[in-house]
Amino acid sequence: MSTKNLKEKLYIIIFEADTWWGKFFDVALLVLILLSVVTVALESVKSLNAEYGLLFDTLEWAFTALFTIEYILRLYASTNRVRYAFSFFGIIDLISTLPAYLGLILTGAHSLIVLRSFRLLRVFRIFKLARFIGEASQLQRALKASRPKIIVFVTAVSIIVMIMGTLMYIIEGGKNGFTSIPRSVYWAIVTLTTVGYGDIAPVTVLGQTVAAFIMILGYAIIAVPTGIVTAELGMAVAKERSSDTRVCANCNLADHDADASYCKNCGEELPQN
Amino acid sequence: MSTKNLKEKLYIIIFEADTWWGKFFDVALLVLILLSVVTVALESVKSLNAEYGLLFDTLEWAFTALFTIEYILRLYASTNRVRYAFSFFGIIDLISTLPAYLGLILTGAHSLIVLRSFRLLRVFRIFKLARFIGEASQLQRALKASRPKIIVFVTAVSIIVMIMGTLMYIIEGGKNGFTSIPRSVYWAIVTLTTVGYGDIAPVTVLGQTVAAFIMILGYAIIAVPTGIVTAELGMAVAKERSSDTRVCANCNLADHDADASYCKNCGEELPQN
Amino acid sequence: MSTKNLKEKLYIIIFEADTWWGKFFDVALLVLILLSVVTVALESVKSLNAEYGLLFDTLEWAFTALFTIEYILRLYASTNRVRYAFSFFGIIDLISTLPAYLGLILTGAHSLIVLRSFRLLRVFRIFKLARFIGEASQLQRALKASRPKIIVFVTAVSIIVMIMGTLMYIIEGGKNGFTSIPRSVYWAIVTLTTVGYGDIAPVTVLGQTVAAFIMILGYAIIAVPTGIVTAELGMAVAKERSSDTRVCANCNLADHDADASYCKNCGEELPQN
Amino acid sequence: MSTKNLKEKLYIIIFEADTWWGKFFDVALLVLILLSVVTVALESVKSLNAEYGLLFDTLEWAFTALFTIEYILRLYASTNRVRYAFSFFGIIDLISTLPAYLGLILTGAHSLIVLRSFRLLRVFRIFKLARFIGEASQLQRALKASRPKIIVFVTAVSIIVMIMGTLMYIIEGGKNGFTSIPRSVYWAIVTLTTVGYGDIAPVTVLGQTVAAFIMILGYAIIAVPTGIVTAELGMAVAKERSSDTRVCANCNLADHDADASYCKNCGEELPQN
Repeated sequence: MSTKNLKEKLYIIIFEADTWWGKFFDVALLVLILLSVVTVALESVKSLNAEYGLLFDTLEWAFTALFTIEYILRLYASTNRVRYAFSFFGIIDLISTLPAYLGLILTGAHSLIVLRSFRLLRVFRIFKLARFIGEASQLQRALKASRPKIIVFVTAVSIIVMIMGTLMYIIEGGKNGFTSIPRSVYWAIVTLTTVGYGDIAPVTVLGQTVAAFIMILGYAIIAVPTGIVTAELGMAVAKERSSDTRVCANCNLADHDADASYCKNCGEELPQN
Repeated sequence: MSTKNLKEKLYIIIFEADTWWGKFFDVALLVLILLSVVTVALESVKSLNAEYGLLFDTLEWAFTALFTIEYILRLYASTNRVRYAFSFFGIIDLISTLPAYLGLILTGAHSLIVLRSFRLLRVFRIFKLARFIGEASQLQRALKASRPKIIVFVTAVSIIVMIMGTLMYIIEGGKNGFTSIPRSVYWAIVTLTTVGYGDIAPVTVLGQTVAAFIMILGYAIIAVPTGIVTAELGMAVAKERSSDTRVCANCNLADHDADASYCKNCGEELPQN
Repeated sequence: MSTKNLKEKLYIIIFEADTWWGKFFDVALLVLILLSVVTVALESVKSLNAEYGLLFDTLEWAFTALFTIEYILRLYASTNRVRYAFSFFGIIDLISTLPAYLGLILTGAHSLIVLRSFRLLRVFRIFKLARFIGEASQLQRALKASRPKIIVFVTAVSIIVMIMGTLMYIIEGGKNGFTSIPRSVYWAIVTLTTVGYGDIAPVTVLGQTVAAFIMILGYAIIAVPTGIVTAELGMAVAKERSSDTRVCANCNLADHDADASYCKNCGEELPQN
Repeated sequence: MSTKNLKEKLYIIIFEADTWWGKFFDVALLVLILLSVVTVALESVKSLNAEYGLLFDTLEWAFTALFTIEYILRLYASTNRVRYAFSFFGIIDLISTLPAYLGLILTGAHSLIVLRSFRLLRVFRIFKLARFIGEASQLQRALKASRPKIIVFVTAVSIIVMIMGTLMYIIEGGKNGFTSIPRSVYWAIVTLTTVGYGDIAPVTVLGQTVAAFIMILGYAIIAVPTGIVTAELGMAVAKERSSDTRVCANCNLADHDADASYCKNCGEELPQN
């Protein structure tokens, strides 16, 4: 096999997902990423690290080795190496291997290995494989169509929390936990989104009244993004379901179900779908 | 009455719900299950157990006896005993009686009696009885149609909480409660879903900024599952309301539009609406 | 004026809201109720009660006197006195005056005066007055149509919290706050509804994992009631908007806008709306 | 350039946003406002103020100077000075400069400078600039159409929290944190909106049962505002998508259905689509 052939084949396996080997590579890689993330996560638990430290270290180096080989292969097989190296996934791929090596030289650099979890974003490539294409693209289209409305909404919410946070800073003051405006704005976000940690909570009557107002506001305006996405998604779903383009040759009716064989208006046979 | 007749009659009463006795058996059983679950729940309250311990014990043995008889009858009446014994409800039925007997031999086994609460799932069989069929099946159809979109959504959410949890572990560190990555991921879930216990809460400015971002994200993306279910449910409701009851005389197809004059499947003329 | 005339006029003013005096009576009564509720609420604040105790007492007795007169008038004017006395609002009306008098005899009975807040429910009668009729009835119709689906949903949620609460009772146990099954079920409700007080929170790894699962579940299934109400409300709104029953005399087209004067299909003049 | 010309040009730049300079002025002003708000916010952080106090003071006076000039120019250029001075934005503009000057005379007046954050509301003027017009107006129209339903909903919610708060005050009492009715109503709002700080939480069994009921209620009725907004927004989106651009040659009506052949207002034939 010539070098060019090898490179092409590698490209098809590593970067595409249309062949059996391409799919297998993507799924296997995702499983590896997931396992490596779980390893990093469990390693961060002190009690587990004390007991299985050696196992975690070994696994981590194994994953690092595999990801390094994968990175080199990607670099080798890609048609435009610079573009890959500076692409979003190219940088993520590099970042997920480097910290392990840097940890040998610099103390503390090792802890950056947790950045590896960003590789999980590759799962979105897997959705290309299966019957999820249609569903994911419907969601994507609906979210895209909603974007300008969402921007208007998020801007309005940002201004609300800034004003409300400033107001509560004046009303409650430092002694009740609202020590600064940024912290009060943080509290306003915690309240408006109905998260409500309770680490900061209003104590004065006026403060609780304003807080109650923010809560009801937050409770009511959650309806807006939901309304936006639902309206768009409803359209996307309805569109896909009703997308039959056949026209009856006899009466020119166009509104046929996807499973219709005859025109519902005049009984003429329709062309096959 | 012959044995075969008895077995058949028992089967109709216990496993089906079309006859008066069948319905009665199902409802009575559900009331018994509910009472037994309430008994177990109240028994777990220390102060009540100290006072009414004997009553609870008596009731529990009574329920165990009844459920044991029911289990034996089910086993006897079922046409395929092995299949019933290893079916979901077969195992649940067994599990809800065994711990009481095991508690006589093994200390501690008795506490497993709380597993009896799983029997409450039998309520979904009751829905078959009444006018809830249509409603439940509409919900079910909508949820089924939403499933692939929900899977895409849950995967995206899982990756977001993993990345956000890891990020917060680096930013906040162990001294602020983010002692390990799994714990930080748990915090991210608590925050994204807007539950917000407050047992772990960010303290640093950067941590609170990232937390604010997660909250707004969680507040915004709750729109997505809602949008999905609403769009599908709207379709299911609209479909049922506009359902045409005409059946084609030629091919027996029933799913006609209200404005159809001819069968879309075979072209036969339909009766006027 | 004869007694009968007086009684009839009183009935129209007190029980109906179609005349100017009837509307005035209803609005004035609502303002009085609101004021009396505010008085009771402020009286419960210790610092305010210490200072303005006498004022509150005077106001309370004034409201009690007015409500007593109103109750007697209602009893006098109603066509069927027994039915009114035992109706929902009849009992509420009685309960809102009695505790003040009982407080003179029995110590403690006075505190029941807070039950007066139930009189606020009369506000729903006010909605009958104004342009809110259409809106309120649209909401009502949508909620009514949603009821069977909501029942199925609430039953499912109840079983989920019972099973989850029991599970957490076994996993976490009394030392982490899950002291009994009812308390654990309470925690499950707090978590599933995304309220999240944080007074009880899981501590073990397994407990936190199950909790995370409940949260994501709660976050996802909130979509269901929203979807149900939205689908029904969308129908109700669409129906009201498109409720033009006119048919074109020339081409029999029926789907006209409410503001159309001519048939959009053939240009024929339509009958006036 | 004559004075009148200058005044007119200033008006176009400052109050309108149709020319290049008008847009530039609006965007530049918004950036200044944002920077000044950030300065005020950071100044409120004690540690930052200790270190960069002089820088913050300098910046604040610079912003105050710029806003003062802007206010004078607005006053000068406006066609009706009294109307501007007493308009919402006129008062906000004045308030955002005054505290700095007042701070020189009165101690404490300076802290009112945080009111400057209200100027952020000017961002909504920026939306006029760009392609957000359509989106913002769709949102606005949907919210406007929802208003009467939202009022009915908010009234119902207010009564629910008042009754529930009063109930919990009786059940739990002062020793468990429910020290007064207003505070209990505050708790009911915190719970119903699913915020759940946890600063006040029911302790008795009856209290927890009622709380659980409020939570499930809050969880269920969040569906109502969402349903309202979604239904209206769906209509607004659907309308815009299906908008027919044909105009009647006879009566200039523009709002035709896509399938209309004749003007619904005057019966004139429309051009083919």
